Amino acid sequence: MATSDLSKDLAPIVSNTMADMVEIRLREYLKRKSFRPGDALPKELELAEALGVSRNVLREALSRLRMLGMIETKKKRGMVLARPDILGTFERVLDPLIIDTGTLQDIFELRLVLEMGLADLLYIRKTDKDIQELEAIAKKEVNVDNTFRIKTEIAFHGKLYEMSGNDTLKRFQIMLLPIFDYMVAVEQQPTRGDVTHMDLVQILKNGSKEDFKRGMESHLKPHFDRLK
Amino acid sequence: MATSDLSKDLAPIVSNTMADMVEIRLREYLKRKSFRPGDALPKELELAEALGVSRNVLREALSRLRMLGMIETKKKRGMVLARPDILGTFERVLDPLIIDTGTLQDIFELRLVLEMGLADLLYIRKTDKDIQELEAIAKKEVNVDNTFRIKTEIAFHGKLYEMSGNDTLKRFQIMLLPIFDYMVAVEQQPTRGDVTHMDLVQILKNGSKEDFKRGMESHLKPHFDRLK
Repeated sequence: MATSDLSKDLAPIVSNTMADMVEIRLREYLKRKSFRPGDALPKELELAEALGVSRNVLREALSRLRMLGMIETKKKRGMVLARPDILGTFERVLDPLIIDTGTLQDIFELRLVLEMGLADLLYIRKTDKDIQELEAIAKKEVNVDNTFRIKTEIAFHGKLYEMSGNDTLKRFQIMLLPIFDYMVAVEQQPTRGDVTHMDLVQILKNGSKEDFKRGMESHLKPHFDRLK
Repeated sequence: MATSDLSKDLAPIVSNTMADMVEIRLREYLKRKSFRPGDALPKELELAEALGVSRNVLREALSRLRMLGMIETKKKRGMVLARPDILGTFERVLDPLIIDTGTLQDIFELRLVLEMGLADLLYIRKTDKDIQELEAIAKKEVNVDNTFRIKTEIAFHGKLYEMSGNDTLKRFQIMLLPIFDYMVAVEQQPTRGDVTHMDLVQILKNGSKEDFKRGMESHLKPHFDRLK
């Protein structure tokens, strides 16, 4: 029993370390040889032999690269270098319940920074249609009870990110939302500034970029006040 | 030969799909049972039996969670839930040579948004010591040739992120830098606005937050002009 426990304790560490090393070696190889998306990788057997590792260890390392979206298997062509989804794995680890408090606070602030910095892109790309849709979202908020408030918050700010015309940014903020909501739910203070969503819509319609920046600052003021 | 090719073509797909499913099942289980960092996971053998999969497949899935920093192996205690490094895996896939042009452009813009949104945190947290260090960096830039310009750019803007007091944000922008530099190197137009680094230092010393926001806008103007 003691022996079986020992082998169980040691086995995962050894195999993990090997997979780590193989993963790093493969990355270096792909980079050094300037592999580009679509390029075919050598066969598994050749890779395992060149690295001097078992096929199980090699497959473990390949499985990681596959999970990261760096390689994919194509019919007939075998493994090829792929274009990774840069936010895909990030999404997997963003869970407010397992992230430490310091990082939660950092992410909370990161979202405030993004909101404050969004104005320039918005004023380059906003359209009348966008603003109409944003206004429709803001109108729905009136007389909504607290249960629905988070939903309308998400809809409004999500639409702003969409108007920035930047898909990565939009996806990124959607991922950060659960963290943001978690932090807001933990706090007990009121979270609304003097400038409402509808005020922001009116500024986007008739105001300057500077007006919008000042408006967003007032809108988020309760959050910034808590940082002081 | 044909048969051996076939088994090679099919085997990785099947094993990958199984590992995918096991990975998802394990995540759901950890979430449903409210595992927190430090909690011990059931033994490998029990997990494999409960899931009805081989230990190889289970280990492949566990290896992925280990790579993401979600689990770690402790002496005597076995596998425990860990605090993942949320930017760790993100870093692994950020390579300008394999990311598609649209995403590169998105990341370029994301960094502009972060720079523009930084002022509020800076004005909450900046210290005299910070500003002295920033000034020292800006002074070094004078009479520096183009080879060193990127280095001083990184030092100056890196210090600004450091002054924000947000470690996640600082690490994040360090990761984005290669992408940003790649995009700037690809462009042929001049990339400097009318407001210099030294001007920004003087604003941080004596100017208001609004002055700084306007200053940063002028500093980054050539980049924003390219987006139009």
